[in-house]
Amino acid sequence: MTSENNQSSEISANCEQVGRFWQNPRVEQLLLPHDLACSQAHVQMLGEQGIIDKQVAKTVIDGLQTILTEVKNGKSPLKSDDQDIHAGVERRLAELIGEASQVMNLAKSRNDQIATDIRLWLRDSTVEIFEHLLSVRQSLLELAQRDLSISMPGYTHMQPAVPILLSHWWLANEARLRRDTERLLDFYGRLNTLPLGASALAGTTQPIDRKLVASYLGFADVIENSLDAVADRDYLIEFGSFAALVGIHLSQMSSDLLLWATQEFAFVKLPRAFGLRSLNMPQKRNPELLEILRSRPSQLFGRLNEFCSELKGLPFAFSQDLQECLPGLIDMVDTLKFLLELTGKLLPALRFDAERMKEAASQDLTNAANAVDYLVERDTPTSKAAKIVESVVQYCKERNKDLSDLALSEWQHFSAAFDNEIYEHLTIEGSVSARSSFGGTSLEQVSAALKRAEEFLQHDRQRLPSKFANRLLEKQIDNTQKEKQTKS
Amino acid sequence: MTSENNQSSEISANCEQVGRFWQNPRVEQLLLPHDLACSQAHVQMLGEQGIIDKQVAKTVIDGLQTILTEVKNGKSPLKSDDQDIHAGVERRLAELIGEASQVMNLAKSRNDQIATDIRLWLRDSTVEIFEHLLSVRQSLLELAQRDLSISMPGYTHMQPAVPILLSHWWLANEARLRRDTERLLDFYGRLNTLPLGASALAGTTQPIDRKLVASYLGFADVIENSLDAVADRDYLIEFGSFAALVGIHLSQMSSDLLLWATQEFAFVKLPRAFGLRSLNMPQKRNPELLEILRSRPSQLFGRLNEFCSELKGLPFAFSQDLQECLPGLIDMVDTLKFLLELTGKLLPALRFDAERMKEAASQDLTNAANAVDYLVERDTPTSKAAKIVESVVQYCKERNKDLSDLALSEWQHFSAAFDNEIYEHLTIEGSVSARSSFGGTSLEQVSAALKRAEEFLQHDRQRLPSKFANRLLEKQIDNTQKEKQTKS
Amino acid sequence: MTSENNQSSEISANCEQVGRFWQNPRVEQLLLPHDLACSQAHVQMLGEQGIIDKQVAKTVIDGLQTILTEVKNGKSPLKSDDQDIHAGVERRLAELIGEASQVMNLAKSRNDQIATDIRLWLRDSTVEIFEHLLSVRQSLLELAQRDLSISMPGYTHMQPAVPILLSHWWLANEARLRRDTERLLDFYGRLNTLPLGASALAGTTQPIDRKLVASYLGFADVIENSLDAVADRDYLIEFGSFAALVGIHLSQMSSDLLLWATQEFAFVKLPRAFGLRSLNMPQKRNPELLEILRSRPSQLFGRLNEFCSELKGLPFAFSQDLQECLPGLIDMVDTLKFLLELTGKLLPALRFDAERMKEAASQDLTNAANAVDYLVERDTPTSKAAKIVESVVQYCKERNKDLSDLALSEWQHFSAAFDNEIYEHLTIEGSVSARSSFGGTSLEQVSAALKRAEEFLQHDRQRLPSKFANRLLEKQIDNTQKEKQTKS
Amino acid sequence: MTSENNQSSEISANCEQVGRFWQNPRVEQLLLPHDLACSQAHVQMLGEQGIIDKQVAKTVIDGLQTILTEVKNGKSPLKSDDQDIHAGVERRLAELIGEASQVMNLAKSRNDQIATDIRLWLRDSTVEIFEHLLSVRQSLLELAQRDLSISMPGYTHMQPAVPILLSHWWLANEARLRRDTERLLDFYGRLNTLPLGASALAGTTQPIDRKLVASYLGFADVIENSLDAVADRDYLIEFGSFAALVGIHLSQMSSDLLLWATQEFAFVKLPRAFGLRSLNMPQKRNPELLEILRSRPSQLFGRLNEFCSELKGLPFAFSQDLQECLPGLIDMVDTLKFLLELTGKLLPALRFDAERMKEAASQDLTNAANAVDYLVERDTPTSKAAKIVESVVQYCKERNKDLSDLALSEWQHFSAAFDNEIYEHLTIEGSVSARSSFGGTSLEQVSAALKRAEEFLQHDRQRLPSKFANRLLEKQIDNTQKEKQTKS
Repeated sequence: MTSENNQSSEISANCEQVGRFWQNPRVEQLLLPHDLACSQAHVQMLGEQGIIDKQVAKTVIDGLQTILTEVKNGKSPLKSDDQDIHAGVERRLAELIGEASQVMNLAKSRNDQIATDIRLWLRDSTVEIFEHLLSVRQSLLELAQRDLSISMPGYTHMQPAVPILLSHWWLANEARLRRDTERLLDFYGRLNTLPLGASALAGTTQPIDRKLVASYLGFADVIENSLDAVADRDYLIEFGSFAALVGIHLSQMSSDLLLWATQEFAFVKLPRAFGLRSLNMPQKRNPELLEILRSRPSQLFGRLNEFCSELKGLPFAFSQDLQECLPGLIDMVDTLKFLLELTGKLLPALRFDAERMKEAASQDLTNAANAVDYLVERDTPTSKAAKIVESVVQYCKERNKDLSDLALSEWQHFSAAFDNEIYEHLTIEGSVSARSSFGGTSLEQVSAALKRAEEFLQHDRQRLPSKFANRLLEKQIDNTQKEKQTKS
Repeated sequence: MTSENNQSSEISANCEQVGRFWQNPRVEQLLLPHDLACSQAHVQMLGEQGIIDKQVAKTVIDGLQTILTEVKNGKSPLKSDDQDIHAGVERRLAELIGEASQVMNLAKSRNDQIATDIRLWLRDSTVEIFEHLLSVRQSLLELAQRDLSISMPGYTHMQPAVPILLSHWWLANEARLRRDTERLLDFYGRLNTLPLGASALAGTTQPIDRKLVASYLGFADVIENSLDAVADRDYLIEFGSFAALVGIHLSQMSSDLLLWATQEFAFVKLPRAFGLRSLNMPQKRNPELLEILRSRPSQLFGRLNEFCSELKGLPFAFSQDLQECLPGLIDMVDTLKFLLELTGKLLPALRFDAERMKEAASQDLTNAANAVDYLVERDTPTSKAAKIVESVVQYCKERNKDLSDLALSEWQHFSAAFDNEIYEHLTIEGSVSARSSFGGTSLEQVSAALKRAEEFLQHDRQRLPSKFANRLLEKQIDNTQKEKQTKS
Repeated sequence: MTSENNQSSEISANCEQVGRFWQNPRVEQLLLPHDLACSQAHVQMLGEQGIIDKQVAKTVIDGLQTILTEVKNGKSPLKSDDQDIHAGVERRLAELIGEASQVMNLAKSRNDQIATDIRLWLRDSTVEIFEHLLSVRQSLLELAQRDLSISMPGYTHMQPAVPILLSHWWLANEARLRRDTERLLDFYGRLNTLPLGASALAGTTQPIDRKLVASYLGFADVIENSLDAVADRDYLIEFGSFAALVGIHLSQMSSDLLLWATQEFAFVKLPRAFGLRSLNMPQKRNPELLEILRSRPSQLFGRLNEFCSELKGLPFAFSQDLQECLPGLIDMVDTLKFLLELTGKLLPALRFDAERMKEAASQDLTNAANAVDYLVERDTPTSKAAKIVESVVQYCKERNKDLSDLALSEWQHFSAAFDNEIYEHLTIEGSVSARSSFGGTSLEQVSAALKRAEEFLQHDRQRLPSKFANRLLEKQIDNTQKEKQTKS
Repeated sequence: MTSENNQSSEISANCEQVGRFWQNPRVEQLLLPHDLACSQAHVQMLGEQGIIDKQVAKTVIDGLQTILTEVKNGKSPLKSDDQDIHAGVERRLAELIGEASQVMNLAKSRNDQIATDIRLWLRDSTVEIFEHLLSVRQSLLELAQRDLSISMPGYTHMQPAVPILLSHWWLANEARLRRDTERLLDFYGRLNTLPLGASALAGTTQPIDRKLVASYLGFADVIENSLDAVADRDYLIEFGSFAALVGIHLSQMSSDLLLWATQEFAFVKLPRAFGLRSLNMPQKRNPELLEILRSRPSQLFGRLNEFCSELKGLPFAFSQDLQECLPGLIDMVDTLKFLLELTGKLLPALRFDAERMKEAASQDLTNAANAVDYLVERDTPTSKAAKIVESVVQYCKERNKDLSDLALSEWQHFSAAFDNEIYEHLTIEGSVSARSSFGGTSLEQVSAALKRAEEFLQHDRQRLPSKFANRLLEKQIDNTQKEKQTKS
């Protein structure tokens, strides 16, 4: 026996990470308030249901509130030899209120409590991410409003294709984050369900009321099946893929900006405050922050992959493997919040060179597509029109000319269908304004799209509840009781 | 020039995979019908809008219908030197109807068309997967109904914890797939939007009506922003993570079954028809099919990972990289359908040994938890109750007895709180039926849960539209026109 | 019983993929010749050891040779109801030579045979990839030789930093693939060991000689421990990460080339034969093949991820899960060979614009770094030098000048340390040739590096054995016997 | 300008993670000593080469030594507004020795220095991991020695197949880690090369001696090509896949142990000190630590995936993306060391139940394979022998007998080839000892294998250099100079 204990202390001495992740100060700090709220709601219900004496319930809830206050004042109840967060709370509570503390464990286990704690924390994190998403979308719409007069080349395969408005590009990025907002809301709905009451895995013999606890804690529903409730970590994959997708969107946006920030494109500059200076190369301004936006989403992919592999083939229902995901999940939330915050600060600080962008859209024969359109509108079959314009382009290249430099007679040499109107088609303004199909890049379309996007954003602001601050527990309990009285 | 052409043919001769994936027969076979439908709907709209002559539109649509019929009869329009699927269709159409075929390319590009083709195909695949999900859920509910009388140990950490009903386990698995069904429906809503009309990336100069095309093709809406429309591959991540999650659920279920199929557990046997015989070890019956269910989901994770990495940091809007995902997506759909189909066939064929399962639930002191509950219900504080029962357990182990073997006097030696009722608590039946909290494992709760699950399943059956069979295009057009007339 | 059989045929009818992967024609085609060689070597050893009659051994080996000939003539021995590849060979062999065929299974199991088959196939694939690697390295060195006179900007953070030679860039890419060649050789050494003789998992009761079989099949050694031998799939991860790394190297190289192929950089063009034409945008030349090189490596990462997840937490020793990796492994080999082949064809076809590259290296103040060096060499502290040159750069920008445009008096306005030598430092040629530290970009260093690289390549050509063609089995057996005789 | 600065401070105030990862205290703590050593070696070389005055060199080196001492005493030189680790050191050095500090930046850039720092740190980490690997292998061999007398079932597909010795299983696990040791050594060889001297990317104009710096810092060679030198992060993938493979091996080992720790198998118990107690279920002993060993390797896979995605498609040569990998790499090293340490402590503490294991090997007809062998040795064709024994097995099952319970007459009812010797074949001892082919499970083979493994381990102990402690720099410089003098 003694030798066993020695080994034990040796392990805790040497393997500091043993994966009692709750001894990770960051995990502890994040989960503790939620753990306390969870216990308070549970004990309140035990009292309401007559499973324990109401006065005992009040004593316990007050004791937990004392610990919560201690936590908020930076004093953790945990000691290094507490087995886990729950054990630490229990020990501290017993110090405060004596044996009455024991009722806290009635009809509840570590398995359903930790599952509840994580959901409480992730629910608040989701709200914060929702707010960040709205804020970035707001920035994007403001930029779209600001840049309605800037035209630039639209690219496919990194090759200039047809001119677009810069605002159109901002709105495309906003549209992607709008879809991500939808996903987050769908996710929130599935997350916002209560596992507590499943006990270890099979339910409990006590006449608990799980829906009452759900209402105290602001959950929309309970996870019914008790096995499912303690084992469900679906949110790891669902949140993980949401985060990965946001990361992809930010990464693609920054990839375009990095391209435009090259000296060769020279469409955009980062202000001095957003770059590191290169000591030996004073002419350089390095876009490190954009590179971070491009690169760091890979960490989100890695975590998503980790979760898949951790969950694959696990025996049902609860095992330590389910706890192993937690540091990764916290890391994911941190990373995503950082990326969104950085995006929100960085984008408005960028300086665009409107002249240069317009020039790039004009040169380089990007308006050849317009000449094809011109012919097609005048009933030349598409493939024939393409061949004609290809010859014109070849003719220009050999003479180092732009299409707009050609005389009408030169045009008509290639096709009799050309007349003076062709020149209108060749201006950037003409080209952009002509693309007025729904969702196209014409100023009229982009302005209408911007207006709709602003309305959507207004609408989305209404759609997620505020964070469930712990201090609200009391109010929730009041509300629940009032509702009950109203019904009866 | 000649040398270039030589190199070109050398490439096509030697690098057969050059990633002209449309020369992959499986991709071609899957996308072609959708590509034809897409062009038909587009041309019909061009006629309706007066962009082309209605009679020309009819000629083109009929020509495309002829090609569709050829395809259905196994005759592909594609030749090896066609640049891609669109070029092949165009060439064949020109053979059939001459120069009129050219109008097909008006106000449409490869970029928005391929984006539409993939969504049309994936939409139908989603419906098929929806049907498979419902079918597996149906099987699980039937098994839950069948096995209401089988009790077994419930496990945490692979250690027996408290007895449960096998039906409770079946229902837990069904509950997970029910959530997956919700996810699929959310996904379907976002998938079911039309990119066509974005043209190359910026919209078109023609007065097209995108919503009309959407209605022809059964899309609920259009993807508004033209840059976004050609570049949006969000469905890769969203479908990929849905598939990964289903895979995790099936993998965990099969992992339990593999454990139970060991000779040491001996809870379940695969029928002979579902195992390979081992030549040199005739006593063995290997559960290969369960192993496939456990293992193959990893392929889904790998694909999801591939998609993340492919999309990360891509310049906006269209590039070949977006095409590279297609073989992986098709593979994912195939794998998921296979896994669900295999599950649906395998589960009902398993043979459970009810006696053995009950025996395992009885022995091994799994009912110690019940003795703790007994004391707690009689006001012993939890930690004290746990210590008492731990002593009883130790006492039993030393004497190689089960708890139910102890005389009342032996019980009372440990705590005066024990009386004859303790024996009821120690039976499996007593233990199971006592866990009657909402979502618990008591027969009453499980039966009620089963009833609710059946109602949910009935409800879900109503929720997804049927596959958009190509032959329905004509009917859709009719409907759309009728609606218009009604409105006007 | 009957109902079981019905279910069985239903499964094979409906679940066509049941994962009897050997019914995958491509897997079958790849493994069959190796399976036959494996059996031949085994039976030859059985005869040599006196475990079976030598004449019987000869009959079996000849029968297997007949099947091999049939396979080479395109006639597979497998029928759809053969349980696996081994069963099919056995059945066909029995048809050819009757009951003698049975000895083939003596002291051998499916588990060690399939493990051997895969290694035999992967060993040959490794040799092919080795040859592809050498060939791409050869191309890179030829390009480095060709482009010794082309100077260009060297970039960090996609911003021009200091001028380099294009040859220096080619050599950097070759250096990476040289390291990959080292890795492949290390890998080959670990792959080239024989599992056969482990039988199902525990060895055999027969007096077999595993090293004799190894020598017949050209393996350098046997995998000793029998449990390890049937379960070792380490090569999945080791080969997978090798492939991922090659993919990363090709992807990064093509990413630079894609940047240089933009109209804004305009350093490089793909010849017409290597791009697809855009119908509506005749001015465009899209670099799809480079995009494939950038993107497709993601498939390698996905497979590596799949393998990790498949192998994680598997019970020891053999299970079906180990077979599930095979299609992914074959896919990986195909993809890697394709990528290397494409690289080898594409690189020499690219057209570089030396004038444009030199111009880019000159302008844009990339030689500010040289001015700093100039001052530091004349004992100005680095940070002070940097500040001085920063002021000069600012002065130039405001006047829209290059550094080389400044008069000496203007230079001396900023620091008295400047004299006429500064102008030499500002030429591209001066800048490049000055960087003559070991491994630097000066012509002298690059030429020397090229020479060393060519010698390395020559050396590497000697380092991997040729493919183990199946027809060589007979010769190997002869050699082994000669060696034995020589020794005795 | 002012507004820019405001934004800047806002960013540093709000985006605390801005990815100036060197402000991550753990990264700072790990890299700082190596950064200082790197600078010392560089400056020493500058003095030796006459690029700077030797006395100045000494002053700088002494100043850096002072900082190193401060760091070792827990006083970091970094302040929150230092741009990075290099800037902080430079500032502190200037405080100590004034303007002479500037020479430190001569012929060196951030790019090649950070690349060198990481390699110095990872090289030491590799040595630590090597030591952990040797220690776990040592434990495994001691356990193999201890358990030579314990027989148990060998499993395939989690089904008992043939009896083996537990020692054979320990040795299989050791064999895997032996291969991993080989991989680590191969990796170390490639890691142990010096990037310094590449400067920003193109080499330097100063007459530096890179090989001299390499010898000071204990590197075996330099990375020649300067572009390659600053960009090479191949070690991320190579170390990552090494770590993943070790993780897979530990995960599979723990997966077997978890199975054996179930009450149904009951082969092994964790001592009390290694498990958490379950409050409400006092009978339970949960194997959390084994679950951590099974699960946590997924974090290694996730990081490997992250690295692949981060590196894919990066433009050459240096960018911030390359810095983003560092926290992940440190995490990987921590995790791997933890997993190996935990394994080394946990394995010797496990308690095996030899009786139970032997019993399991006897029952359950695992020796049917022996009966097949028996017949085959007596010239019954394998498939016929298998059919005969299958009938015997069926006969036993129906009568609830073991094979050893059958009378000889019953055996002979199935085949005349059976005589009394069959009973010897059916004992565990007979079965195990019969499998005496090379690498098989017989005591003789296992003992010989154990002896060889011990010799290998002894050999491996000699193969890696000790850690390059920073204090050795002085000695290295001495040695290098002595060598030089000897040569001249």
